[in-house]
Amino acid sequence: MIIILKEGVSANAVDNILGKIKDAGLNTHMSVGASKHIIGVIGDTTKINVGQLMTQEGVEDIRRVSEPFKTVNRKFHPNDTHIAVGNGFIGEGFFSVMAGPCSVESEEQIIEIAKSVKASGATCLRGGAYKPRTSPYAFQGLKSEGIRLLLEAKKITGLPIVTEIMSASVLDDFADVDIIQVGARNMQNFDLLSELGHSKKPILLKRGLSSTMEELLMSAEYIASGGNENIILCERGIRTFENYTRNTLDISAVAMLKRLTHLPIIIDPSHATGKSYLVSPLVKSAISIGADGVIVEVHNNPPMALCDGAQSLTPSEFDELMKDVKRRVEFEGKKL
Amino acid sequence: MIIILKEGVSANAVDNILGKIKDAGLNTHMSVGASKHIIGVIGDTTKINVGQLMTQEGVEDIRRVSEPFKTVNRKFHPNDTHIAVGNGFIGEGFFSVMAGPCSVESEEQIIEIAKSVKASGATCLRGGAYKPRTSPYAFQGLKSEGIRLLLEAKKITGLPIVTEIMSASVLDDFADVDIIQVGARNMQNFDLLSELGHSKKPILLKRGLSSTMEELLMSAEYIASGGNENIILCERGIRTFENYTRNTLDISAVAMLKRLTHLPIIIDPSHATGKSYLVSPLVKSAISIGADGVIVEVHNNPPMALCDGAQSLTPSEFDELMKDVKRRVEFEGKKL
Amino acid sequence: MIIILKEGVSANAVDNILGKIKDAGLNTHMSVGASKHIIGVIGDTTKINVGQLMTQEGVEDIRRVSEPFKTVNRKFHPNDTHIAVGNGFIGEGFFSVMAGPCSVESEEQIIEIAKSVKASGATCLRGGAYKPRTSPYAFQGLKSEGIRLLLEAKKITGLPIVTEIMSASVLDDFADVDIIQVGARNMQNFDLLSELGHSKKPILLKRGLSSTMEELLMSAEYIASGGNENIILCERGIRTFENYTRNTLDISAVAMLKRLTHLPIIIDPSHATGKSYLVSPLVKSAISIGADGVIVEVHNNPPMALCDGAQSLTPSEFDELMKDVKRRVEFEGKKL
Amino acid sequence: MIIILKEGVSANAVDNILGKIKDAGLNTHMSVGASKHIIGVIGDTTKINVGQLMTQEGVEDIRRVSEPFKTVNRKFHPNDTHIAVGNGFIGEGFFSVMAGPCSVESEEQIIEIAKSVKASGATCLRGGAYKPRTSPYAFQGLKSEGIRLLLEAKKITGLPIVTEIMSASVLDDFADVDIIQVGARNMQNFDLLSELGHSKKPILLKRGLSSTMEELLMSAEYIASGGNENIILCERGIRTFENYTRNTLDISAVAMLKRLTHLPIIIDPSHATGKSYLVSPLVKSAISIGADGVIVEVHNNPPMALCDGAQSLTPSEFDELMKDVKRRVEFEGKKL
Repeated sequence: MIIILKEGVSANAVDNILGKIKDAGLNTHMSVGASKHIIGVIGDTTKINVGQLMTQEGVEDIRRVSEPFKTVNRKFHPNDTHIAVGNGFIGEGFFSVMAGPCSVESEEQIIEIAKSVKASGATCLRGGAYKPRTSPYAFQGLKSEGIRLLLEAKKITGLPIVTEIMSASVLDDFADVDIIQVGARNMQNFDLLSELGHSKKPILLKRGLSSTMEELLMSAEYIASGGNENIILCERGIRTFENYTRNTLDISAVAMLKRLTHLPIIIDPSHATGKSYLVSPLVKSAISIGADGVIVEVHNNPPMALCDGAQSLTPSEFDELMKDVKRRVEFEGKKL
Repeated sequence: MIIILKEGVSANAVDNILGKIKDAGLNTHMSVGASKHIIGVIGDTTKINVGQLMTQEGVEDIRRVSEPFKTVNRKFHPNDTHIAVGNGFIGEGFFSVMAGPCSVESEEQIIEIAKSVKASGATCLRGGAYKPRTSPYAFQGLKSEGIRLLLEAKKITGLPIVTEIMSASVLDDFADVDIIQVGARNMQNFDLLSELGHSKKPILLKRGLSSTMEELLMSAEYIASGGNENIILCERGIRTFENYTRNTLDISAVAMLKRLTHLPIIIDPSHATGKSYLVSPLVKSAISIGADGVIVEVHNNPPMALCDGAQSLTPSEFDELMKDVKRRVEFEGKKL
Repeated sequence: MIIILKEGVSANAVDNILGKIKDAGLNTHMSVGASKHIIGVIGDTTKINVGQLMTQEGVEDIRRVSEPFKTVNRKFHPNDTHIAVGNGFIGEGFFSVMAGPCSVESEEQIIEIAKSVKASGATCLRGGAYKPRTSPYAFQGLKSEGIRLLLEAKKITGLPIVTEIMSASVLDDFADVDIIQVGARNMQNFDLLSELGHSKKPILLKRGLSSTMEELLMSAEYIASGGNENIILCERGIRTFENYTRNTLDISAVAMLKRLTHLPIIIDPSHATGKSYLVSPLVKSAISIGADGVIVEVHNNPPMALCDGAQSLTPSEFDELMKDVKRRVEFEGKKL
Repeated sequence: MIIILKEGVSANAVDNILGKIKDAGLNTHMSVGASKHIIGVIGDTTKINVGQLMTQEGVEDIRRVSEPFKTVNRKFHPNDTHIAVGNGFIGEGFFSVMAGPCSVESEEQIIEIAKSVKASGATCLRGGAYKPRTSPYAFQGLKSEGIRLLLEAKKITGLPIVTEIMSASVLDDFADVDIIQVGARNMQNFDLLSELGHSKKPILLKRGLSSTMEELLMSAEYIASGGNENIILCERGIRTFENYTRNTLDISAVAMLKRLTHLPIIIDPSHATGKSYLVSPLVKSAISIGADGVIVEVHNNPPMALCDGAQSLTPSEFDELMKDVKRRVEFEGKKL
């Protein structure tokens, strides 16, 4: 950590600042410049209250020089994390394909889709039971009944299931769910993250609509610092000024996050673009850049979907996609 | 609602679309163009599943022509809403000044600040008990003990209190709180919003960091549709590319929201800029554009604040500000 | 300037870095940390090639600690700059009102508007002759003929004129123009800025749609470093995710820029919002926060305007606005 | 085009609007709704002045239903455009690799790099002669001398060259250049675009930092409407809130633009991320999503580069990359 001092700072002010840092058990080193003086802080700077330090007399600015995330930082954990899900793994060497409808609508619907995506080669079944909707008047999901239906589909197909949680108060409903998803709008619902840190279940953590990678990693840190390191990060598109796509998939984030953290990273091309015809190009892109998987919307009857039909693939489009995915995953030396 | 059809759409496809709309109990009107045909939908379009319609064969695009928010819409409720708080009101004719520390830190601290801001003319005491923090390692607030201390300060000064809630699970702690704040990161925590809709307490709803005004109003609609129309909107700065300020205060939102909704609107200059020296200019700006109030951070010892010291005014700076505020509020023909 | 070294950097690499800095005639100071070492660079760091330094072995990051703008920096020029225009001044103590149509359309139109805004109290006439348009099929302005008409209007009313330049190749057309405007899309047209640096004419420099204040000041520095310090900055709204307004006026920029630079700052509420009914609220806001003026669109017949009618005030709306402006400017202790 | 009328619009106002549209030679169709009436406009709506129509009494909103770009629109030109450059082509079936330094620095440097990238398999030599720099104090390029050196390198290696233009006033310098680049900051320098429309040279048009795809296509339309359809679009990263990468590469834009336009599209991973270690992942991603090429920075001595060294590959890194590129291009069934 570096503390930049104001020009003409008094010796008293400097002593006060140095004292505060020493009180926190850290060492300092002073750099005397022509117009600016700088204090370098040496040691574990998480012990320092930056906000407080910022207002001390004579302080102009404070800059961090190391990342604020620790448990999820690759520096302290160089090997990739593998996460066991069902009979398989998520992470290095595997390319996971989570597929299914935006919302679970009925037993018939979810079972039909589950069988179909299983046959095409999906490794996990996705489906929304609790649905975050911008409007209170929109369909909010089948809730606990939706989870019961997902478990039914799991029993029949053997596919592990992933579904979204919106509040820790319904955590009991997720007892048999394989992966609990935290949606983009809840990425900084810190209460929820803390609760999930006490679970041992794999968590699929989606990046917020306007969140930075560092904020995503700090939210992962909330979960990890509670003891649960089974976290899968998901890039699902960020908000930009572009209108042709609903959001903008930040494909570089896959490569960058791979350097910063040991956690697996998948992408969500369906929410990122809102357009089913962009799903396949983005899946190709994700495979070649080294993502650990994708989560894709598939609906047996997109025109009748209760939400997000326009971004859903039909089962036959998904089947087509999976043929290409297999070829590409093999080309990259990975397996499904 | 307008449905734009694809070029060369078949008569069958058109019949199917018209049928779906009729099934929802609505009427249609068809506009036949040179290259595009358009269906106008007449009636209460909230009954229509747009996502589903979007995927019907022949549909190119669907555009809304009226706002999706109803209860909070000024069109259906032309008069300004007044909200009774303590012995006063928030809304037209009044300019509210909510002041206090970012975090409640101790009984001594909060009572000293409460007395001081009361003496300067504040109309409400603010203070964080439950604190949303990006890092799990940062100070998370005194929680229920913080609320107890705020109530202590209220008893002594008579100032109504406003403090943030992060989860409906602790709603009981807020029984004696005057205004419950929903922070920017929880603006789309729909579970929390729904719960607050069943309360009768005034809710201070902050705009999300990258949310549009329409999304803010839809979140207010979540609360209002549950039966609670005591909602105060708060513009607290949106995320932009600017670095000199932490966020960018969208001052136009005050004037625009006044047209769109009957709810009162205040601004938060402290979080918007992160810099105490920008608070006073923005407060002036807010008064003259017609905001119903401001929420300002005041700390008796900013350099020792446990969070956000750099954006806090000292009690004497706040006192100075209030002298100017009184003059300006009077100039606008309002009262504190 | 601070150079953060990689962990485990070799002594050779450090020597190489220190050597490069010494070669540029600067001194260094080394801070040895537990996990990171830091080099502080002392002296005029504009002599250093940061990009080159960044790639030296052992360098992790480089951070500036002082602003890259010099001539326009308030630190080196503490007093406000006043700019003589016509018989008056722009800058401290004065509130300028530049008014007129988006585009000059005809002699009759511009003269009628000029007389009208003059009568209402405007201090400058604005009007577009060269028009930057997103579409090649849109009206591109009357060009040199438009400037001739503006000069005609100036002759009749005595109002100084401000109009936009899009290319240095037509600089001769601007010989009698009082203030040359550089539009948002040309804020980083560095060739044009350099040319204007050799002029002595006042330049109205608009902030780019997604530019930071620092980038705006660097563009001003391009002009100033050429010898022309007669620069008026203009905040005209930045691009955000909000749809109800065309752009988002960054009102805090006025207060922040006042600290960073000695140049006058005005705002453009017409382009910022695209809605004539938001002009008056924003003008009030600008006056109270300390802006040096506004530039406002006025059209004698907004429904017939060749561009941007929706954001233009009518002459009578403008007259109404000016009555309020006078009251408010007086309240702030300034004069028109 | 659709015109949405205000509630309670008068018959007179409607007649006036219908008259204006008829005057422009277009037909209308009226849709009478419960709360809103809508006019559908039929015919070539580029003849209509939208801004003017917007301000007519009774008009609430106007929405376009077809794209404003024509010449570059795939609808009117379904087949991909191929552009002849040197002895090869840019466009369908080919994957172009443009490589070279950010800036031409000396004869020795550019010739060494040209030979090296040629040997590795690059299809085009890039190099900056006129350099747009945020700071007037930064290195501005060797200008016409830089172009002379590029032509020297072309003579020796046979590689066609691409280099940036910043002002039409130096167009003569580009007489022997193979592809003229328009940089992101000049994407809306409409004067420059118009001038390039009169040329026949291939233009490499980079997307602006915060521009939408539609704006990019409208800028291409400026060139195309002047008669020059030899345009190569370049996605080079857009500005977002992310800090780990300099910009965010919008990879979906490649797939989306392929649907919207017949022009070839390449990506620039060097500027998009600012980090050499992210170039190779993004190139892989670009090949698999169907881009027509990449433009990559290569410097023989990145630590000594006069600009952007941190994002430059060394010749040996580039050689390594090209081996992988060949494998991948072949996998996609294309050729270099």
